[in-house]
Amino acid sequence: MKPIRIAIIGFGKIAEDQHLPAISANPRFELAATSSRTGHGVEPIFEDWRELLQSIEGLEAVAITTPPSVRHEIAAACIEAGLHVLMEKPPTSTLSEVEDLICLAEAKGVTLFGTWHSRHNPSVPIAAQALAGKRIAEMQIRWQEDVHKWHPGQRWIWDAGGFGVFDPGINALSIVTAIFPGSLFVRSAQLSVPANAETPVAAEIDFASDVADGPLHASFDFLRTDGEEWTIDIRTTDGRSIFLKEGGARLFVDGAEQDVSGPGEYPDIYREFVDLIDQRRSSVDVTPLRLVADSYLAASHTTVEPITS
Amino acid sequence: MKPIRIAIIGFGKIAEDQHLPAISANPRFELAATSSRTGHGVEPIFEDWRELLQSIEGLEAVAITTPPSVRHEIAAACIEAGLHVLMEKPPTSTLSEVEDLICLAEAKGVTLFGTWHSRHNPSVPIAAQALAGKRIAEMQIRWQEDVHKWHPGQRWIWDAGGFGVFDPGINALSIVTAIFPGSLFVRSAQLSVPANAETPVAAEIDFASDVADGPLHASFDFLRTDGEEWTIDIRTTDGRSIFLKEGGARLFVDGAEQDVSGPGEYPDIYREFVDLIDQRRSSVDVTPLRLVADSYLAASHTTVEPITS
Repeated sequence: MKPIRIAIIGFGKIAEDQHLPAISANPRFELAATSSRTGHGVEPIFEDWRELLQSIEGLEAVAITTPPSVRHEIAAACIEAGLHVLMEKPPTSTLSEVEDLICLAEAKGVTLFGTWHSRHNPSVPIAAQALAGKRIAEMQIRWQEDVHKWHPGQRWIWDAGGFGVFDPGINALSIVTAIFPGSLFVRSAQLSVPANAETPVAAEIDFASDVADGPLHASFDFLRTDGEEWTIDIRTTDGRSIFLKEGGARLFVDGAEQDVSGPGEYPDIYREFVDLIDQRRSSVDVTPLRLVADSYLAASHTTVEPITS
Repeated sequence: MKPIRIAIIGFGKIAEDQHLPAISANPRFELAATSSRTGHGVEPIFEDWRELLQSIEGLEAVAITTPPSVRHEIAAACIEAGLHVLMEKPPTSTLSEVEDLICLAEAKGVTLFGTWHSRHNPSVPIAAQALAGKRIAEMQIRWQEDVHKWHPGQRWIWDAGGFGVFDPGINALSIVTAIFPGSLFVRSAQLSVPANAETPVAAEIDFASDVADGPLHASFDFLRTDGEEWTIDIRTTDGRSIFLKEGGARLFVDGAEQDVSGPGEYPDIYREFVDLIDQRRSSVDVTPLRLVADSYLAASHTTVEPITS
């Protein structure tokens, strides 16, 4: 079977660390080109993605790994060109943009895949099954990391539309919305915004749910240098406990660690992208982005110390 | 035909000024009860809406005119009780809540009507028709009013989830999304937030669209005491001009004022509610609320002088 010729648009850290190895290891793909405004990438490299689209013969798909604010324009042009489109998370800066892309892809008959890499941990379907049909007594999410370690020099995170601590926090939301046995609503959100930033460096969010009898809380912190933690702790009213740690890489059910070996997040993303293309289907779940938007709608704000870069 | 027994939940200023006269003037409705936490309303009055639902025989519908933050809980209970539900704008505080209500109403087979009263000006369909299929050269929205005149003592507007200047501004967005001949995306939003408020007192928003070749701008101001203005000014690339003023009450096409006489916003809302109930249909457009959420997602912020009440 002829491999799918794919290009990476916006070749930065996540493309180099994750998308490139995952594409290279998947025989169903052939990397045809890359683009980045800095000229960084794998040959042939284009500084202008429009030139890439015009120049590469037989291109069938793109992975868009730019910052979210420019993705709608790029994805809309790629869909218009008849390409299958994979987007890093979050798919776009705004909800209207992703809803528009869903319509465009459906009209054009191409595959649109809004990825949530954290959902590709094997722990996620196991946790979902363990919670199915249960009532929830308590949930505590802690997503606390050192921004300077994981996003060195990435100023866009602090600019308008840059998501701040919701850039990692949306990964927690993408897992929770996949495993929680009912709807989640943002009840309140306390955002801490650095004096020199437009986006929060920390967020304390309380949720409500039709299937919960106790507190549902998320604590996002982007300035945790010691004791980084990416955990989701859920107890059901009938005494079951679900504990995800290391961003979903490890899972404990009732205290016992589960076997969650798998191909890895990004290899599994590209496996699913092949399936979606083969079946001419799209997969775009806006729920995690909607919960971020809802956190802003419900937010109260505290100004905190300026962020250093 | 037996009238539809309806209750008003959250009997405040908008209920007294608009919903009560519109219901009273429509022979298809019979006001069965009202509720408000302050005991204000039309007899029989309940301070607890739950008690109203349990006490009133043969209730078929409710109009929910509370502040948005409590509407999801009330509407969900009313839908569960098999009642048709009309909601003031904006339907809920968050997008997840309104999406949930849409699902609940569909599952229960009752009518859910998320109203946008400004859309019930006869100018709106005329303007939509005049713009259909056109490309847009420029759009300027000015929604500038004196909050102290229109929302005396309503502190909830400034609290978390209270919408601030988007409470009137969403009316402009509800009109624009009904008449604009393409999609609208928030490109940037400059929010001015009083030092003692969680919500903006002013907003400058730039939009993008697939059908526009020039600037699309909205200017919302909640502290305009002199020269209040609720206008939408649109020019097409082929030279047509559409000008709505007084919140949509008056319409000029190419400078000529149009005949836009009609029953009035709220009488037309209740006429449509009857139609929806008769046809067992729902009508909830989340687009205006989504554009508010998108404005927050894309926002940059300026702190301004404290608001006085």
